Amino acid sequence: MNNVRVISLLSDFGLKDGYVAQMKGVIAGLCDARIIDITHMVSPHTILEGAFILRSAVSYFPRGSVHVAVVDPGVGTDRCGIVVTARDHVFVGPDNGLLIPAARLLGEFTVYKITNKNVMLRSVSHTFDGRDVFAPVAAHIVLGMPFERIGEQTNSYVELDSGQAVFSGKSVSGRVLYIDHFGNIITNIDGAELLEHVGFGSQVMVFVGDKRVELPFVRSYGLVDTQMVLGTIGGSTLFEIGANQGDAAKKFKVKPGASVKVLFS
Amino acid sequence: MNNVRVISLLSDFGLKDGYVAQMKGVIAGLCDARIIDITHMVSPHTILEGAFILRSAVSYFPRGSVHVAVVDPGVGTDRCGIVVTARDHVFVGPDNGLLIPAARLLGEFTVYKITNKNVMLRSVSHTFDGRDVFAPVAAHIVLGMPFERIGEQTNSYVELDSGQAVFSGKSVSGRVLYIDHFGNIITNIDGAELLEHVGFGSQVMVFVGDKRVELPFVRSYGLVDTQMVLGTIGGSTLFEIGANQGDAAKKFKVKPGASVKVLFS
Amino acid sequence: MNNVRVISLLSDFGLKDGYVAQMKGVIAGLCDARIIDITHMVSPHTILEGAFILRSAVSYFPRGSVHVAVVDPGVGTDRCGIVVTARDHVFVGPDNGLLIPAARLLGEFTVYKITNKNVMLRSVSHTFDGRDVFAPVAAHIVLGMPFERIGEQTNSYVELDSGQAVFSGKSVSGRVLYIDHFGNIITNIDGAELLEHVGFGSQVMVFVGDKRVELPFVRSYGLVDTQMVLGTIGGSTLFEIGANQGDAAKKFKVKPGASVKVLFS
Repeated sequence: MNNVRVISLLSDFGLKDGYVAQMKGVIAGLCDARIIDITHMVSPHTILEGAFILRSAVSYFPRGSVHVAVVDPGVGTDRCGIVVTARDHVFVGPDNGLLIPAARLLGEFTVYKITNKNVMLRSVSHTFDGRDVFAPVAAHIVLGMPFERIGEQTNSYVELDSGQAVFSGKSVSGRVLYIDHFGNIITNIDGAELLEHVGFGSQVMVFVGDKRVELPFVRSYGLVDTQMVLGTIGGSTLFEIGANQGDAAKKFKVKPGASVKVLFS
Repeated sequence: MNNVRVISLLSDFGLKDGYVAQMKGVIAGLCDARIIDITHMVSPHTILEGAFILRSAVSYFPRGSVHVAVVDPGVGTDRCGIVVTARDHVFVGPDNGLLIPAARLLGEFTVYKITNKNVMLRSVSHTFDGRDVFAPVAAHIVLGMPFERIGEQTNSYVELDSGQAVFSGKSVSGRVLYIDHFGNIITNIDGAELLEHVGFGSQVMVFVGDKRVELPFVRSYGLVDTQMVLGTIGGSTLFEIGANQGDAAKKFKVKPGASVKVLFS
Repeated sequence: MNNVRVISLLSDFGLKDGYVAQMKGVIAGLCDARIIDITHMVSPHTILEGAFILRSAVSYFPRGSVHVAVVDPGVGTDRCGIVVTARDHVFVGPDNGLLIPAARLLGEFTVYKITNKNVMLRSVSHTFDGRDVFAPVAAHIVLGMPFERIGEQTNSYVELDSGQAVFSGKSVSGRVLYIDHFGNIITNIDGAELLEHVGFGSQVMVFVGDKRVELPFVRSYGLVDTQMVLGTIGGSTLFEIGANQGDAAKKFKVKPGASVKVLFS
């Protein structure tokens, strides 16, 4: 087994500027963690999107992982930095709702406000807390610093309004959470719950954005003809609408936030 | 010397979604390998392109490396997962031809079908074998599991039709394999074989797509004037057409698959 | 503390082609360094941009780091490869000015020409010194090879003309160095020096490209209204012009090289 701890990184910094590398340099100078990028391609300042990607990835990481996430339009204002602990995972980032869905997925969680200036870089820049605050805090956690020395526990923290799908009779109403790289349309409809109402192999009627389509609900993409649309339960355990080797989001011209309704009968 | 083994990753997952990170999380939870990304920017579902990039990179990796490659339009159908071993390298991925050119480049190879469900994640998702099957299989190989426990050896596996350049008299006919980041046009014409017919410093006549051009065949890009086109032998040991600090693919408007003929006299 | 040394990589190779992975494979086969990517998205052949990103990142890396940087339009010509040492950091790359600003930021530096063919890959390709020369040189440095065995010290090396901002009376004139992922316009005007003339909270008049704008000079982005433009001192300690959650470079239509003048009164 592996006893080098993992620090994961998620941000909207992009891959060109070297900002991510500055964070990694700070971490490498302080501790011996394995650094794994979750993504740095979150659409700039889009907290909901970052929260979704973090939540999708977190349960595949080993116990003891520390997740540093920075989508932070409020940097330099009086918003706090926080540390969130949940079932052997630790999250570090801004108090703007970004970290909470992932922590909640793991179970009960505890929130600490980052206040100890000794765990920050000496010359904090006011514009780059990812490097100056969150990266060194993560490294100190890997080095074994108790959470209480980073800051005080708090019951007050920001939550996102990420919506919840509603089952009612022979339909479920929700919305589009995320469009992935392949153009798959990922919804906030829980796959396991949907499966209680409709089996793989059935046809379902789906309203997505302003479009209506009947499509097969199947176990996986390759089970329909090339370019045909389908409904399935994706790797994130959520209902998604895709096209076999095609781009469903382009076909339906939908974006995150669009409404989705599935009728089953 | 280094005794932590390398796991390389190649996919068409892109860099935004966190899918790659899920694979890395699974690996980090099981073993202590060094993970190196080959690329995750393969054009979606384009097996030939993934096979080319994997084949180009593999001989620069150390012995003992395990290469996980996932360009997998058939995921969730009855296509198998395979493990391929070749000269101290191991490849893990779908049985769709993706792995074979890289394995063949190394020499003789052996193919195993992945059948042991104990080396897969407990809840296999039907849509994400990269994370649920190939990543844990790679980790178990690093941990020392014998190939026979992963599955049975087989002589039946899918091959790609990747074409072969043909030398005849004073010309060679082939095709475009790949356009790289700089717009260099990489062909399937073997550089060493071409050098037996034509020396650096000569002029050659090249037909590429529907264009005809006379260009110098030189040792490297910097030897012609800025923006001038040239032929050379690239880092992949194949004949390529480029432009010094320019984008040859844009100039010639060619794509992978286009025909290429080189006349030397 | 960490005693595995860091090798950082910077290039204009992009993320699709597998060129970066070939370099990493070579390094992993020779030594046990932690590899950290600074960026591979430098605009092709744009040495000034690569030099800026390298200089911005270097001081966040731990002592002992070896930085391999390859933006190298002259590859395969008679330009030399060099090793530059500065305050416990080592730089490896082409002698075209790319490495010097980062080295100078650290303090006094020494330059060696790479001449020892035994530290290069056996079959050097003429088109890919990053993989064939610079990667193995970096690995040998991590393994402890003395610089004198890599090549001879030299006082002759290429420098970039990266300009210098000029303070005069109640203004400072400089130019745009870099546009980052968020559209922030980073100038060559030193933040600390500017702060001696004008305090946070003041209004300043800025000429950038062919535009004129009055904007608040503030400690950080979140202190102005959404989409409002502002001046601040960025994470790189330089004066930058941004827009809170907006893209200032698009607003002002400026590119690297554009002139910038700040009036304070």
